[in-house]
Amino acid sequence: MTADLPISFADVAEAAIRIEGHVHHTPVLRSRRLDDILGARLAFKCENFQRIGAFKARGAHNAVLALDAAAAARGVVTHSSGNHAAALSLAAATRGVPAYIVMPENAPRAKVDSVLRLGGQVEFCAPTIAAREAAAAAIVAARGATLVHPYDDPMVIAGQGTAAMELLDAAGPLDAILAPVGGGGLMSGTAVAARTLQPSIRIIATEPAQADDAWRSWKAGERVAGDPPDTIADGLRTTLGANGFLILSALLDDFVTVSEAAIVEAMRLVWEVLKIVIEPSSAVPVAALIEGKVDVKGAEVGVILTGGNVDLDRLPWQKGL
Amino acid sequence: MTADLPISFADVAEAAIRIEGHVHHTPVLRSRRLDDILGARLAFKCENFQRIGAFKARGAHNAVLALDAAAAARGVVTHSSGNHAAALSLAAATRGVPAYIVMPENAPRAKVDSVLRLGGQVEFCAPTIAAREAAAAAIVAARGATLVHPYDDPMVIAGQGTAAMELLDAAGPLDAILAPVGGGGLMSGTAVAARTLQPSIRIIATEPAQADDAWRSWKAGERVAGDPPDTIADGLRTTLGANGFLILSALLDDFVTVSEAAIVEAMRLVWEVLKIVIEPSSAVPVAALIEGKVDVKGAEVGVILTGGNVDLDRLPWQKGL
Repeated sequence: MTADLPISFADVAEAAIRIEGHVHHTPVLRSRRLDDILGARLAFKCENFQRIGAFKARGAHNAVLALDAAAAARGVVTHSSGNHAAALSLAAATRGVPAYIVMPENAPRAKVDSVLRLGGQVEFCAPTIAAREAAAAAIVAARGATLVHPYDDPMVIAGQGTAAMELLDAAGPLDAILAPVGGGGLMSGTAVAARTLQPSIRIIATEPAQADDAWRSWKAGERVAGDPPDTIADGLRTTLGANGFLILSALLDDFVTVSEAAIVEAMRLVWEVLKIVIEPSSAVPVAALIEGKVDVKGAEVGVILTGGNVDLDRLPWQKGL
Repeated sequence: MTADLPISFADVAEAAIRIEGHVHHTPVLRSRRLDDILGARLAFKCENFQRIGAFKARGAHNAVLALDAAAAARGVVTHSSGNHAAALSLAAATRGVPAYIVMPENAPRAKVDSVLRLGGQVEFCAPTIAAREAAAAAIVAARGATLVHPYDDPMVIAGQGTAAMELLDAAGPLDAILAPVGGGGLMSGTAVAARTLQPSIRIIATEPAQADDAWRSWKAGERVAGDPPDTIADGLRTTLGANGFLILSALLDDFVTVSEAAIVEAMRLVWEVLKIVIEPSSAVPVAALIEGKVDVKGAEVGVILTGGNVDLDRLPWQKGL
């Protein structure tokens, strides 16, 4: 079924072995009260507890650890400035090789500090996509470093799939599995892992309606641009990658979009009942349950909570700030 | 060593068997980054993930499940309106018997709703301590219900001690164990469990300096009143109980107090790094580490995080609210 896709289940299984001991087996949480409220039996895979606070540690470690020694020694580079930058810095430090992180001059100080703390080398550039890509390309040319794409690199996709592997192992047979879609790396890895491990499982992608390029592409059968993303789910403002498109087109059972109001409500509900800090992107599949967008009444449902890196000074349900 | 104290280790061990399956074995979390920041190897027992969101579920279940059938059928009563009220309601529902919760007429709606949702029967009274005690006594007299004190009942103390039992079992040998003191139920149970299971462990109590009656009592060698409590750690505004005083006097190695500023800083640090929601009371032992009040440099330290019931609309580090 996955023979002609960019990655196979074997790639995910190999990733799991490769990253073992470098990233956490995160816990799976359940709550009777949340089950009552949402009408399904829910198993939450807590990637907010992952190293660097997000699932991105999985794919970055897989990509860095899979390099041959000579390539690794020349370092890795990215021009993503969010969780992938932190994850790549950590993975490179794990292997003792340099990570070059291209960031716009106006990047938030917290993001710069996070990369520096993890040993990444920050290279500033002008705040345009063209300048960032040029700066990264210059580092690749000058140093022979390997560019690790934040979500469309097959090794990254395979690494992200290990979260679903662990969830299915810990939670037992599931009727459905839900995750959010930004660039599609996590959702693609999840789909490949879940379809092989539990072939009859329903694989359901979720995306903010205000950042729905992936949903539109899935509907259209070809990659199409959406309106400029305008969602509080800041991790999902990216565009679906080419490999992600191929995998999601082949393996998804359903794909739903959710409102901003439902994302905020879902985020708050998870904080309130599960007592964990999740970022808005993590709340998107829970929002789909709140809005009744997927029929999972009474079913066993796995949900991947993708990360927990938020600004604690400003929470989206606090109107006065 | 504990022979002449209000409870023995056997009481804690029996409580663990009695409440098994009714309350959660909560996870123990660790964080390399937090270890680096605080200078010790820390194991956090996450009672914020406990049923009703706080350790109180342990003691309440132990007290209710230990009643003989005739006494249980007549129900249980308390005039605490916080986590103990929710815990007692849940424990009574578990056993299928009534819980009568005396609350002041001006109790926050959220607390009333929480008790009602768990099946407790709310009896309103005038907002004075005398009125609450009279209302509870009237229920005891009229219905033969059993009053379960929120922190000084020996069965409650024994139940709270099961959190430390689980922590020591999960985390391995510890050099020290820290918990907060309000009425002293959790700290007393912790001390009895820890002193027996790991006799050389340092047992360290922590309390807000602005609610320091227990610390003053421990110093004075007799129970003394403090100034009226004025701390954001709302779970610790209670007065040390008589049984708690006896146990803490016999078993503590140290007792330290912390500032309000350190409590807020500790609470935020735990949210930021561990990605979990804890209430201010939970942050008090972490505040002691931040302020360097206890010498645990490089040591293995267990910390009990007591609960996670907070008002998400107003967080103490947000000045503008």
